[in-house]
Amino acid sequence: MRIALAQLNYHVGNFPQNSARIIDAIGKAKLEGADLVVFSELSVCGYYPNDLLERLEFIRESLAAIEKIAAICDGIAALVGGPSINPSPKGKMLFNSAFFLQDGAIKSIHSKTLLPTYDVFDEYRHFESNKEFNLIELKGCRIAVTICEDLWFNQKVMNSFGRENLYATSPMEENCRQYPDLVINLSASPFSYHQERLRKDILVENAVKYKVPIIYVNQVGAQTELIFDGGSVMVDKHGKVVKELAYFIEDFAVVDTSDQELNEIQPLTETSDRIYQALVLGISDYFRKSGFRKATLGLSGGIDSALTLVLAVRALGAENVKVLLMPSQYSSDHSVNDAVTLANKLGIDYETIPIHGITNEFEKSLASIFRGLPADLTEENIQARVRGSLLMAFSNKFGCIVLNTSNKSEAAVGYGTLYGDMNGGLSVLGDLYKTEVYQLSRFINKYEEIIPENTILKPPSAELRPDQKDSDSLPDYELLDAILFQYIDQARSVQDLIESGFEEAVVRKVVSLVNQNEYKRFQAPPTLRVSSKAFGFGRKMPIVARYPL
Amino acid sequence: MRIALAQLNYHVGNFPQNSARIIDAIGKAKLEGADLVVFSELSVCGYYPNDLLERLEFIRESLAAIEKIAAICDGIAALVGGPSINPSPKGKMLFNSAFFLQDGAIKSIHSKTLLPTYDVFDEYRHFESNKEFNLIELKGCRIAVTICEDLWFNQKVMNSFGRENLYATSPMEENCRQYPDLVINLSASPFSYHQERLRKDILVENAVKYKVPIIYVNQVGAQTELIFDGGSVMVDKHGKVVKELAYFIEDFAVVDTSDQELNEIQPLTETSDRIYQALVLGISDYFRKSGFRKATLGLSGGIDSALTLVLAVRALGAENVKVLLMPSQYSSDHSVNDAVTLANKLGIDYETIPIHGITNEFEKSLASIFRGLPADLTEENIQARVRGSLLMAFSNKFGCIVLNTSNKSEAAVGYGTLYGDMNGGLSVLGDLYKTEVYQLSRFINKYEEIIPENTILKPPSAELRPDQKDSDSLPDYELLDAILFQYIDQARSVQDLIESGFEEAVVRKVVSLVNQNEYKRFQAPPTLRVSSKAFGFGRKMPIVARYPL
Repeated sequence: MRIALAQLNYHVGNFPQNSARIIDAIGKAKLEGADLVVFSELSVCGYYPNDLLERLEFIRESLAAIEKIAAICDGIAALVGGPSINPSPKGKMLFNSAFFLQDGAIKSIHSKTLLPTYDVFDEYRHFESNKEFNLIELKGCRIAVTICEDLWFNQKVMNSFGRENLYATSPMEENCRQYPDLVINLSASPFSYHQERLRKDILVENAVKYKVPIIYVNQVGAQTELIFDGGSVMVDKHGKVVKELAYFIEDFAVVDTSDQELNEIQPLTETSDRIYQALVLGISDYFRKSGFRKATLGLSGGIDSALTLVLAVRALGAENVKVLLMPSQYSSDHSVNDAVTLANKLGIDYETIPIHGITNEFEKSLASIFRGLPADLTEENIQARVRGSLLMAFSNKFGCIVLNTSNKSEAAVGYGTLYGDMNGGLSVLGDLYKTEVYQLSRFINKYEEIIPENTILKPPSAELRPDQKDSDSLPDYELLDAILFQYIDQARSVQDLIESGFEEAVVRKVVSLVNQNEYKRFQAPPTLRVSSKAFGFGRKMPIVARYPL
Repeated sequence: MRIALAQLNYHVGNFPQNSARIIDAIGKAKLEGADLVVFSELSVCGYYPNDLLERLEFIRESLAAIEKIAAICDGIAALVGGPSINPSPKGKMLFNSAFFLQDGAIKSIHSKTLLPTYDVFDEYRHFESNKEFNLIELKGCRIAVTICEDLWFNQKVMNSFGRENLYATSPMEENCRQYPDLVINLSASPFSYHQERLRKDILVENAVKYKVPIIYVNQVGAQTELIFDGGSVMVDKHGKVVKELAYFIEDFAVVDTSDQELNEIQPLTETSDRIYQALVLGISDYFRKSGFRKATLGLSGGIDSALTLVLAVRALGAENVKVLLMPSQYSSDHSVNDAVTLANKLGIDYETIPIHGITNEFEKSLASIFRGLPADLTEENIQARVRGSLLMAFSNKFGCIVLNTSNKSEAAVGYGTLYGDMNGGLSVLGDLYKTEVYQLSRFINKYEEIIPENTILKPPSAELRPDQKDSDSLPDYELLDAILFQYIDQARSVQDLIESGFEEAVVRKVVSLVNQNEYKRFQAPPTLRVSSKAFGFGRKMPIVARYPL
């Protein structure tokens, strides 16, 4: 049997556009003689619609789109993803389903059993868990249909008093009791540089354990924070990769299930390369899907804004990115020079707006109220907020989106000004620790010096007071990031950290900074997620609490 | 049997403080001859800890605190709430449990079956659903223990293609097969002025249906957005209220389960009164629990900031609230006068900082870049951002929290400036439509003119350009709020709204404003929730989507 894998980029709620792409791919699959074409999870409505799933008109539009797609399934079958109505009067209204379309109609519906509700996933909020397992028969081939997490019954559960399994039911076990010839999995697996190998391992493990080939179709493209990287794949019953689709772009391929010839497996490229591709896709899809083309950001001469700019230019084109240089009396000459060098190198326009006139005016206006009080963080924050307001004014006037340039280390310890440098429609580097920002910058400069070497080599500074260095108030980034990664990404306790050899005073200082700054992160822009634990909706912490220390 | 209802105010993660309060109440209950004292849901750790539940040290601290409380249960039994470890190696690690403490030890654990995972509730993220139902026997009385949502099996499900029940299992049904003499419910039910009657109805309905008395213990106090209003209650098997505890304050009472004498039922006070109490509690607990005492806000002479100020003064005391008056060239004299009148009436300090010096300096700095372009929203936003930055500077210097003064109508249609008047640590009125802001202001003025009558009577204006009125760009608030309520709170479709008689063009304009402004609300401060559908974590909409129109 010939099966087409259609790895497409969807737009949440854009039924006309999503349907058109799906119908297009069905036509192409038919031309190539496929018997079945497989799309990804919730492909018709886009992944993830969140509370749009609570709106009846959204569900109705999705069902109508599926009927329309079914109507053209003539001489070919298709599996598309979308919400279906739970036929039982008890339980949540919806299932997260795969619709099997054949002969112009919906022939059967196969729903998701394991509903991820952790980290960035929120599926039990909207869906009921499936309990029925029925195979499809197509041209004598018995096919089990699963959806994404359904294959992840055996995932390792971090930090959980020796749990074996996160779920009580194994859909693969249930399905394989009926001896399918093939398992198909409709997925929406977001990229995380921690998890890519894991994803392929899970496919191989399932194929080998149940001695059945698996076709896995993932979506591609970014949905605000989440970046889907594609990489759809077919593994045979021995767990060998028969076909692997491209990463970070739309792709399409027809496989023959009887095919024994193995394709070259794509070697995993270096981590920085994949993060680079993910972030470029994240930026370009955020703009395209929200109907914007132009971006702006503040270029300080430091490494964060330099890297953000390079990524923005790759994603949007030099002609669509304009930056502001906003030096103060504390900005060093080299900062301004480095910024200008980079802007020229990339061929982008920049404007220079010195901020001391405005900050002076702020300080004059506050002078009588602040009389007798020493300068402190207040005055530093004023500078950051003036810059933030200038960027917003520029973006308001010219209709562009401000890109935020903060990194994950800063976001973690609150080393940033709310309504100042924390401004922006999208945080590009907010899921990269500072040490990872350096790694990615060096990757960018691998073949050619794009980011000025001086920007990479000089000690990081916010330049908000004379001779300020980040290391005045924070541990060195190597140490800071190691503590942050273990505390945040790995949820290790302060006690664990101390026992593993970090200095107690440093650990307590860092952890208490993380905890004290939940209120700031609550108001931070959406952050492109590239790790397994990004700030944002995948990490829900109370703002008002006594945290473990 | 004598049972004490302990309605307390907890602090998430503050095990020493929560335990001390619980131990104190156990002592008091013992003195009053109670056999059992009942606390509310997750009382030991506070409701709701969110992803702190994923940290092992948090779970361990909670279990240790429960052991400590158990140790003093000598001659009295207690039911306290906290996470327990799922003994099965499959499924989520935790249950949301009631611990039955007796003779110095944990005697049994009773866990929550129905895990609300909708609106502001996120419990399936952290907990496994209970499937075992065992009664407690105490002094010959057979007691079924349930937790909050467990009583809500029969809740009406809005907007769901004629669903009957949100859940498949009824814990009351399961428990009542064992013929309990009494049902106890440990709760954490947040206040919503839509839902108070409903809550009592549900208790009465269950009592009557299963012919069993119910003791319901709720917590009191605010946890960031959520305000818990207490109102713990005992109903007899006929559904009559035997005892009702106070609202919005801690309370404690001992009931005798054989008691047939009915107490006076507290009549429900008017809606504005309850919203008023809820918001005052919301503000005071936010400050107290985050270790702050002082607040500031911008007083414009308009109704939103006037009402916010009155609530802040009631919550924090006049000595802890300082306001800034920040007039521009567009501010009318009456605005400044009204603001001063109110500040004087409340006996609070204010400072006046005219903003035109700073806005002029912004415009000068941007003049060459903006050359030839007409003034537009950009210049209005600059004014709002200058005010926002001044408030933040004041708060940085004096260690106070900025209170946001936006209302729900503005938040809905994006009539506010991000990083300007949308600033603040807490949004006080963000869940009140403008018409509700007027109602609450009139309630405040019921016996005495506190908010200047002129503030209430004059047409609303942002005063960001000459003679500006809100009605220049928005429908009248009566109409706007009616559309917003039906679209947002009731999730009715555009089609429904048009069919029910609203003018199509107006509906489409309002709805598209709501949809276009998801990105702004994403970065808004936490909002005190008083309705059943507030903006914030109870309404999760994609930022980048094509919305139904």
